[in-house]
Formats: sequence, structure tokens, C-alpha cells
Amino acid sequence: MRYPESLLKLARALSRLPGIGPKTAQKLALHLAFHREEAEGLREALEATRALGVCRVCGNLAEGELCPICQDEGRDRTLLAVVETVADLYALERSGEFTGVYHVLGGALNPLEGIGPKELNLESLWPRLPGVKEVVLATSMTVEGEATALYLAEELRRRGIKATRLAYGLPVGGSLEYVDEVTLGRALEGRKPL
Amino acid sequence: MRYPESLLKLARALSRLPGIGPKTAQKLALHLAFHREEAEGLREALEATRALGVCRVCGNLAEGELCPICQDEGRDRTLLAVVETVADLYALERSGEFTGVYHVLGGALNPLEGIGPKELNLESLWPRLPGVKEVVLATSMTVEGEATALYLAEELRRRGIKATRLAYGLPVGGSLEYVDEVTLGRALEGRKPL
Repeated sequence: MRYPESLLKLARALSRLPGIGPKTAQKLALHLAFHREEAEGLREALEATRALGVCRVCGNLAEGELCPICQDEGRDRTLLAVVETVADLYALERSGEFTGVYHVLGGALNPLEGIGPKELNLESLWPRLPGVKEVVLATSMTVEGEATALYLAEELRRRGIKATRLAYGLPVGGSLEYVDEVTLGRALEGRKPL
Repeated sequence: MRYPESLLKLARALSRLPGIGPKTAQKLALHLAFHREEAEGLREALEATRALGVCRVCGNLAEGELCPICQDEGRDRTLLAVVETVADLYALERSGEFTGVYHVLGGALNPLEGIGPKELNLESLWPRLPGVKEVVLATSMTVEGEATALYLAEELRRRGIKATRLAYGLPVGGSLEYVDEVTLGRALEGRKPL
């Protein structure tokens, strides 16, 4: 049989989303076809995101020129955290422990995939450094994130700015038994007096 | 921090979809915020589904008055399969084995949830019966699906129309070891000479 063309189109659009395969996309498309108010809500929400842009200072999502954090006068502008993505920025914000401002790289160094320093949002980082006392390198604990942190640490050293890195260790609530040996070794290395 | 309002709105709309929790919804919203052409594609696809309606004959999805199956002159109108949902209709179509037409109930009998015969798309089924030689009761093999099939079988008997039910048995590729005992019992009951 021929499926209705608009249903196929919707399933195709949904299957392009990360983590959504063709079967799930088809299920969701059918659900939306029979739940008109949900479909309309989603359509309107997508339309509203047209107003979303990128903060011209830090690369965070913004509804105007500046993101909410860069607009906030209460944030400590001498403390700057470098993150890979906006999702990482949000994760750090949720911790509630960071009072400084951010800089979103838009990825991490990955020579194999052709991502060098020029592919990252770095050109706008250097002009922000005057006045910054500490840059927290909050890239991921992956090979690419580590490489990016090492590269930036070197660049910051040359510019005379203090660079720090997020601590390695056990996750809160984590059991020693199930933690990989490399993480456990790093946690031991970073032990602190009680 | 305040997240951009349109991002929150998009995450909320996505989290209403079945199987998509708040965390996945947030991840998808961020993905769409940074992949504008995907977001636009999805928005357009949702807009296009506004043209989708319900076939006035069988209850299948249709872009006009009649669904593609009811429009198809080649389908056998003496054979009618009753299914619970459009998803079930599509599943049966994919088997490629059914040459008749369909009737979509929009659910199954479920007294506990207040779904009786009046809540199902049955009023439009009875006028379709003249000329039908066999009704295949293709509701699910669940308690509700079985109850619906039994109810319909009785109604069809009263009207002098042959009713059949999908066969119980082992799924193709299924191993005896992992099949539940009720299914295995039914498969034994329905054994056929080779």
C-alpha cells in the first residue's frame, strides 16, 4: 500500500534525530497524526526556536545578541570555563557550583576527523582573556577533550594565564568495585587529607 | 541560569511524545537548536500532516476523503480485517499477505478504562457487512484484544457472517526454549500435518 505522503515525510524528519531509528520514527509519526494538539504544540515550539541564535561573546544559545549568562552582571568575569558544547555548559550550570562565565568551543580537537584549532570557536576566546584570572578547562575526560585541554593549557601558559582542569575521581555514590582501574588510580593520586 | 524560553518550550513539547523522557527531550531540543535545517524539516513535516484526516469508510489515515486502500479498486471487498489501530493495519500490510480491506476500531474493549462498544468505531462497521464473506478479527492477542474479538465474533454470528481469528503459535525464528508455556500450548493445539 501507499502510506500517506505527509506521514512518510514526518517519519523521515523524525528519524534524522539522534537516537531515533526508523521504527521509532514511524511510531512517533503515527502518534502525532492522531494527537493533533501535540503535533501543533511541537510545530509551534519549533517555530519559536527560529529566534534562537548564538551568543556573540561565548557561543551559548541566546535569544538576542547576548546569552542570559553574559547578560548577568552578577557573574564573575575573572573566572572563565571552557566547555565543548552548550549541553556541557548546562550540565555545569546545574551543579550550581560555578559562578564565572563560559566559552563554548563547539567541539574538541580531533585530527582524525579533521578538527583542528581553526575548527573550534577559539578566535573569540583570546580577546576575552585580559582581566581573566583563571580559565577552568572543562572539556570532557575523553581523548579528544584531554587533547583540547592540553592544547589550551599550553596556549594559556604562553599568555601568562592560570589554567585549571576539572578533577578526576570517583563519581558521587560510586562504588569502588565497579569503577574502572584508570579512574580509581586517578582518584588515589588525587587523594586529600580528611 | 535561565534557559532560553523557546528551548524549554521545545523540550516540553518533545517530552510529551511516547517513550521520550525529559532528559532525552532536552538533548533533542539542543540538537535541533544547533541543526536548523533539521528543525525546519521537522516543522514543515508537521505542517504537512495538517492535511491528514481519517478515511470516512475504514478509519485509516487518509489525505482526502478515502484512504489509499479504500481507493484501490484491486482490493478484495468480500474480505475485511478488523484491527485496533492504524499501526496494526500497517503491520498487516507489511506482511504482504492480506488482499482485503480494513476496519480500524481505534482501540479495544476495556471495561476498566470505560471503553465499551460505543467507544469503538463500530457504528460504521455494520453498514459495510453486506457483501462481505469473511471478517478476519485481527485484534491483538491481549486480554482486551481477545475480548474484542469474542464480542465481534458473536455480533457477526448473529448477522450470519463468517468470522476468523489470527492464528496463535510460535513466531518465525522463535526458539521453543524461550517461548512462554501458554503460547507453546496454543501452538501444539494448532499443529498441522506436514
